[in-house]
Amino acid sequence: MTKCEIITIGDELLIGQVVDTNSAWMARQLNEMGIQLYQITSVHDDRQHIIAALDEAFSRADIVLTTGGLGPTKDDITKHVLCDYFQSHLIENAHVRAHIEALYQDRPDILNRLTSTQWLVPECAEILENRVGSAPLMIFHRGQKLLACMPGVPYEMKIAMTEQILPYLESKVYSRKSKAIIHKTLQVTGIAESSLAILLEEFENAMPAALHLAYLPKDGVIRLRLSSYGELTEADMQQWFDRLRQLVSDYLIADIDEPMEVLLGRLLTERHQTIATAESCTGGRLAALLNKHPGSSVFYMGSVVAYDNAVKQQVLGVHAESLRNYGAVSEAVVREMAEGVRALMHTDYAIATSGIAGPDGGSEEKPVGTVWIAWATPEGTTAECFHLGKLREQVTDRACLRALIGLLKRIR
Amino acid sequence: MTKCEIITIGDELLIGQVVDTNSAWMARQLNEMGIQLYQITSVHDDRQHIIAALDEAFSRADIVLTTGGLGPTKDDITKHVLCDYFQSHLIENAHVRAHIEALYQDRPDILNRLTSTQWLVPECAEILENRVGSAPLMIFHRGQKLLACMPGVPYEMKIAMTEQILPYLESKVYSRKSKAIIHKTLQVTGIAESSLAILLEEFENAMPAALHLAYLPKDGVIRLRLSSYGELTEADMQQWFDRLRQLVSDYLIADIDEPMEVLLGRLLTERHQTIATAESCTGGRLAALLNKHPGSSVFYMGSVVAYDNAVKQQVLGVHAESLRNYGAVSEAVVREMAEGVRALMHTDYAIATSGIAGPDGGSEEKPVGTVWIAWATPEGTTAECFHLGKLREQVTDRACLRALIGLLKRIR
Repeated sequence: MTKCEIITIGDELLIGQVVDTNSAWMARQLNEMGIQLYQITSVHDDRQHIIAALDEAFSRADIVLTTGGLGPTKDDITKHVLCDYFQSHLIENAHVRAHIEALYQDRPDILNRLTSTQWLVPECAEILENRVGSAPLMIFHRGQKLLACMPGVPYEMKIAMTEQILPYLESKVYSRKSKAIIHKTLQVTGIAESSLAILLEEFENAMPAALHLAYLPKDGVIRLRLSSYGELTEADMQQWFDRLRQLVSDYLIADIDEPMEVLLGRLLTERHQTIATAESCTGGRLAALLNKHPGSSVFYMGSVVAYDNAVKQQVLGVHAESLRNYGAVSEAVVREMAEGVRALMHTDYAIATSGIAGPDGGSEEKPVGTVWIAWATPEGTTAECFHLGKLREQVTDRACLRALIGLLKRIR
Repeated sequence: MTKCEIITIGDELLIGQVVDTNSAWMARQLNEMGIQLYQITSVHDDRQHIIAALDEAFSRADIVLTTGGLGPTKDDITKHVLCDYFQSHLIENAHVRAHIEALYQDRPDILNRLTSTQWLVPECAEILENRVGSAPLMIFHRGQKLLACMPGVPYEMKIAMTEQILPYLESKVYSRKSKAIIHKTLQVTGIAESSLAILLEEFENAMPAALHLAYLPKDGVIRLRLSSYGELTEADMQQWFDRLRQLVSDYLIADIDEPMEVLLGRLLTERHQTIATAESCTGGRLAALLNKHPGSSVFYMGSVVAYDNAVKQQVLGVHAESLRNYGAVSEAVVREMAEGVRALMHTDYAIATSGIAGPDGGSEEKPVGTVWIAWATPEGTTAECFHLGKLREQVTDRACLRALIGLLKRIR
């Protein structure tokens, strides 16, 4: 199995100014190609640190990928460190120069002397084009091993990986037909992690050593992942997966590792049905989830974020008495919100949320984390009350998840 | 300067099933205490891998923090590996047992034999309480160095760090009054990174070696960060920062590293003014940003996500002729959306967005990435057209950022 490591370079990662979202995305692409990601290491923009990390990564892995440190400013030193590491020197690359000059032809201010340092590259490096930026992609060879360097800006990295680095890896050494890494995931809810593990004890004991089972609990959903790193066939894997699905069928909400909004969107699209949301405590997050993915305009009509009670009344038609008698976080209000937005936007389904996200606003009777959710469907409206924790972000994230799962169940 | 490293443990990080958001948060807390985070290393749930990472981290750092691998299921092995690493053995801890029994007193199904393994802890470890979960926090000593182990679930980790680990570090060894790590950030827009670096060349050459300047470009905003790791006083740092602010004043949008929605929310709160949004292409993201942080109910009234044109007309009062004559992505429509939601929700300000997020829906005249934004204010309505790239997520994120910056500028 081909082993890879990622080194992410940048002080911003180590002082917490930036979250590394690149590595997870890269890991998925590598796994799909049958390349195992062994380790991720984040290091400072510091010569000794970068060199030490490279030495260690090369001692373990066949392929090393780096992101970051390739900008034109003084704090970015990756190219210079690598040039020394491979005992090379910088030379002008005519292709890179032409590319950069074309890229910024309408922006003469950017074609300054700092930008012109971007077309200097280590002589020993193979250069691939960075279609959307000024930092060329560099490949270095060390015996049979190789190092590929990309910018750290996520969208530049993604285009670089998709268009250049992955095809390069595939063409040079590593065939997609080699040993396949297979991950298959079930999503379950309504059972504790430890109880699930007891339920699956016999299954786990019977599993071959080449098969791995992982439990990933989050926000009341447990993702159960079966993994094989090149040792099981797709058919064998499928058999184990089917057995696992059978065992957890009482708790199953999905047999694929896709977000709930994608599953719901697909179901609505297939059924030619539409949805709208009316949100108080989730504040637009549910809407944003529903239209996050391409193709959502087919089933998603719109939303009313009714943070203020006046908006609940005037836009959604919630009754003043309901607000007065039961408060905004109540079954009566959330039902009227769901039915109000369903009528307003002429959809098949509507979801409404109203809750106390905190940190303030809680009471003895309705503590922070109390969330009412209603689902209005062609068959009628139902509502449930949840208690979703104490932290604002957690409450809103979990409320969205519960709202989506609730509708999935009702449609099915 | 006290040096720390983080080891995140879990296959899910290395196959890309989970993004590591913990480390950045932890880094910020450590920096505030004057502890430098030297490296982040992500490793598999694998005995040899964990041990190798521990050895390497201890060779460089004074403090090692681990997250992950502390659940009750078979795939979680961190506790067992550490027990062996420190040549200890597991014993029952009465405090942990009492805590777990109290935590799940209403959930007898969880108090099963797997959960009961959670109150077994290495004899040599100091145990701190995990208030919200079953995995006890463990501290191990190795000479003057120490290792602290936490669960990987973000909200459990945050509570563990805030309530237990950071106070422990502070009380034991590391005083907040020791050398301070200082980061100060300016946010600028409207200038290319390389042009900015040329503008700041003299400044950078004059900086003492103990001061570091970093450029972090993203979505058209560059964050300029000055950092000192314990060598400059707050007053010295402030002088350099003031000089830097002076130099970039033409492009400055903020002199603090806070998100635009926080800056805007603070400004609106101070002025006792309110806001609403009408969103097409941003799909609720702008609403979600505006009410993400506590205290938003003071200034944020609500939003209409008008994904469908019928919703634009019926809820926001956009004219059918405007849609017919100019299309949904046009100055006329986005102005009517902003004015419509401002009137509907009786706010001082309103922002509206309409654009082509892609991947489909683009044309020669209006390619993917075209976004119209309008700002309705007590002084009137203005609108601008932006071209924000080709990737759906990038287009919507950038549109939100441009919308917030646009209103900040208009209010100021």
